[in-house]
Amino acid sequence: MDSDSIDSADFSKLLLGPGPSNVPQRILKAISNNCISHLDPDFFDILDEISKNLKNLFKTKNETTFAISGTGSAGMEAAFANIIEKDDKALIFNSGLFGDRMADVASRYGGRVIEVKKEWGKNFKFQEMKEAIDREKDLKVVAIVHAETSTGSFQPIEELGEYLKNSDIIFIVDSVTSFTGINLEVDNWSIDICYSGTQKCLNVPPGLSPITFSEKALNKIKKRKEKVQSWYLDINLLKDYHEQSRVYHHTAPVNMLYGFNEGLKICLEEGLEERFSRHQKVSKYFDSIIKSTDFGFFVDKESDSLPMLKSLVLPKSISDDLRLEILKNDRIEIGGGLGHTKGLIWRVGFMGCNAEIKNVDIFFEVLKSYV
Amino acid sequence: MDSDSIDSADFSKLLLGPGPSNVPQRILKAISNNCISHLDPDFFDILDEISKNLKNLFKTKNETTFAISGTGSAGMEAAFANIIEKDDKALIFNSGLFGDRMADVASRYGGRVIEVKKEWGKNFKFQEMKEAIDREKDLKVVAIVHAETSTGSFQPIEELGEYLKNSDIIFIVDSVTSFTGINLEVDNWSIDICYSGTQKCLNVPPGLSPITFSEKALNKIKKRKEKVQSWYLDINLLKDYHEQSRVYHHTAPVNMLYGFNEGLKICLEEGLEERFSRHQKVSKYFDSIIKSTDFGFFVDKESDSLPMLKSLVLPKSISDDLRLEILKNDRIEIGGGLGHTKGLIWRVGFMGCNAEIKNVDIFFEVLKSYV
Repeated sequence: MDSDSIDSADFSKLLLGPGPSNVPQRILKAISNNCISHLDPDFFDILDEISKNLKNLFKTKNETTFAISGTGSAGMEAAFANIIEKDDKALIFNSGLFGDRMADVASRYGGRVIEVKKEWGKNFKFQEMKEAIDREKDLKVVAIVHAETSTGSFQPIEELGEYLKNSDIIFIVDSVTSFTGINLEVDNWSIDICYSGTQKCLNVPPGLSPITFSEKALNKIKKRKEKVQSWYLDINLLKDYHEQSRVYHHTAPVNMLYGFNEGLKICLEEGLEERFSRHQKVSKYFDSIIKSTDFGFFVDKESDSLPMLKSLVLPKSISDDLRLEILKNDRIEIGGGLGHTKGLIWRVGFMGCNAEIKNVDIFFEVLKSYV
Repeated sequence: MDSDSIDSADFSKLLLGPGPSNVPQRILKAISNNCISHLDPDFFDILDEISKNLKNLFKTKNETTFAISGTGSAGMEAAFANIIEKDDKALIFNSGLFGDRMADVASRYGGRVIEVKKEWGKNFKFQEMKEAIDREKDLKVVAIVHAETSTGSFQPIEELGEYLKNSDIIFIVDSVTSFTGINLEVDNWSIDICYSGTQKCLNVPPGLSPITFSEKALNKIKKRKEKVQSWYLDINLLKDYHEQSRVYHHTAPVNMLYGFNEGLKICLEEGLEERFSRHQKVSKYFDSIIKSTDFGFFVDKESDSLPMLKSLVLPKSISDDLRLEILKNDRIEIGGGLGHTKGLIWRVGFMGCNAEIKNVDIFFEVLKSYV
């Protein structure tokens, strides 16, 4: 990690929730550059650079790799809106809020959604996913969340991609929280559509969704009988602007894209492997201390737990209200539970530049001052 | 106008196109503030302030008034996605590219679209709009662009709103280019859904779409038989986050919203009337000089022409390529034509803080150096 980008970050609050994470000054500075036109050749150079850098980080050669002009949830919607045609059968492996969201989005776009559900905090084993897929005929889409932000659970997807590779099934992966924090290989794992967010391990403010489409996905979209229902997210139109012809579609969010490019550069300067092991190191350190407290792990197995987002079961002695007290008094954000875990768990994030041993120490020091 | 916000703007390029316009340093500084969580009570205060300021500028009491997390085109999509149910009849008055876009978006969401078309650069008279509406039975939506960015044409809408007021028809207005540049009165003109962009007269970078929904619009949405097709733009879910309950929907684009709020404040400090007359003054000055050149006006009547965006017919002696030459050599952006006007017209914008006599002088001085 370029130490400058960590040290120079003057955090007004320490964001140890599930995102947004803290934004290095270098990225904030880029965002505050003067705005130029979305049709300026100088801006096209920036778009080219973004695409090149993003391909490197997604580990893909996909030509159609850029940022959707909306948050990670807009990326999710772009994936399903483009791929799903009326009555397309979509199998969704769901073990958290973002699995629920996938099912909702896919069905809004006319998909026949089959959900395979699992208790929150658990992940799916390849064998059971294979069996679920084999049970279904005429499956068009399989979708899964790589890193479930609502539970802190890690979902291995490599074998699943390998299994779907030679089928006609489109493989959609949500990498909102995993991207640049743990290994993700779009091409090697045969992912057809992969989307992410910017406000997690990338440390760019929320507002954009990096996305990539394989040739296989684009071919399915080309054969659609009806137009993509969303004009704003129609990949046929977005491709024209983001790739060669630069035809105007909508006005790209210029300043956010300045910051996004800076975030991508910071990752590439550090190197992905270095970045992954930094997250692992901090996670192991955090876990080793948690074991000596009254907190429980919401995700049972250590190897199933995300390094950048730790989900903790609150002991009876600690009220969820303490989070807001800490935010107010100590200017440290900790995430609460979503859905039925509200009030029962905390989600503690060490994402991107926040994945530092010192932040773990700060977390426990502050906690100690209250309990 | 707070002169500080103009003078302190260190423009690397002078943006005299159809938007984005130049962004004052004060707004860029706000955007580069440290990011905090979208669920932080301090951020909720900012959202409250945004809603209050936006209501003032839209001249509305509508509770549901906030910024969509996407550009102006996402605002357009939010309007139609929420209001249109399958086979709803939508009448669209279309005299430019953004009229075309409305028709496309409305039909993607299942609307039966009736387009009343007019030559680009012309606007609709109330009497003909009234007749078109009277011809149709069971009309659910009437939509029109207040300021057509593709042509520079101004469309009066006050009488149309008055006519639709006591009907069940939902009145949608695109104010992307007009908002804070010319008068717009959402409540007095009985507009049901009004959306805009940030990168025009507001001088905020592109990326958000201010929007407002009347009770009449929300009531139609409440009665929908099917879910809104777009999850990301579903007003039922967005309302929960942006109004009282603050339930998490998607991660709001925090830093862009910092800048947006600053842009709203700048408008309110100057005052809308002052701002409108500044745009008029600059427009009149520009027109008076154009008359002595070989350029023609694309919009015939001066009163039908937008003050913040002037469309000029190129004389034979000037090639459209000159725009790119000026951008490269003089760092001044001028907009080209869209659709069938490409190569034939220029669009010259004096939007928000760019509406200054000195910018008109700069435009003509630079032009003189080439022709």
